[in-house]
Amino acid sequence: MPDILHRVGIKAAPNTVYDALTTLKGLSGWWTSDTSGDANVDSVIQFRFGANARVDTKVLELRRGELVLWEVIDAHADWIGTKIRFELKQDGDITYVLFKHEGWKAPTEFMHHCSTKWATFLVSLKALLEEGAGAPYPNDLQISSKAA
Amino acid sequence: MPDILHRVGIKAAPNTVYDALTTLKGLSGWWTSDTSGDANVDSVIQFRFGANARVDTKVLELRRGELVLWEVIDAHADWIGTKIRFELKQDGDITYVLFKHEGWKAPTEFMHHCSTKWATFLVSLKALLEEGAGAPYPNDLQISSKAA
Repeated sequence: MPDILHRVGIKAAPNTVYDALTTLKGLSGWWTSDTSGDANVDSVIQFRFGANARVDTKVLELRRGELVLWEVIDAHADWIGTKIRFELKQDGDITYVLFKHEGWKAPTEFMHHCSTKWATFLVSLKALLEEGAGAPYPNDLQISSKAA
Repeated sequence: MPDILHRVGIKAAPNTVYDALTTLKGLSGWWTSDTSGDANVDSVIQFRFGANARVDTKVLELRRGELVLWEVIDAHADWIGTKIRFELKQDGDITYVLFKHEGWKAPTEFMHHCSTKWATFLVSLKALLEEGAGAPYPNDLQISSKAA
């Protein structure tokens, strides 16, 4: 099964990156400003993107400063049952985020779109932690214009 | 074998996008400003990124407004023998670029990095064609800071 893979290096401590992935305040600073729910293990986080999309993730595993693992339980059909994994690795004053959105059934055109979109959101996470402001929905980078 | 997949939608005609993928001037406007060689079928294009990286691609197939396919013949060892594919699909006044960097032997950490980096270069391609200026090397977006 094809996976979406990404990596960014962020000038921040592993626990700082971890907090941005495991608190509603942190998540709403880089993915979508409309984030609610509970980010603890076995709980569900609700991510909303206006009329465009909704994603509910169940938190499967958390290891402070090391790992965040979610399962998608409600979203676009292609996402349901997929897992979203953030592994953190420290190198000096940089924390690398190894990102994997795994378990896609097929390399659909929508998967191509989501891969590019995830990259821009990880760049948003880096900007949040290094510069103090990310670009979460609805201020996210547009990678496809609408056809006229 | 894992692939890197991306998609961007660009407000431009398929042939305009095609030209940005098949001329030295176009390629130097979004991937690296140090692009030389010959972008015709069976020829080799040389992409240089200062001391950081070199990529030579052989042009395997060109279909105007539809497809660009390269094989990597010299680069980082992980890239040699991989193929880079751009498929163009028109929808109204938008041209979608379906991008695939295929034939990686393993989902290495470097592959994660390259996936994110490709996304930023495709956003650069979109900016070049929609706004008149891309962000090719050495003005490319930095996705990893150097460890101190």
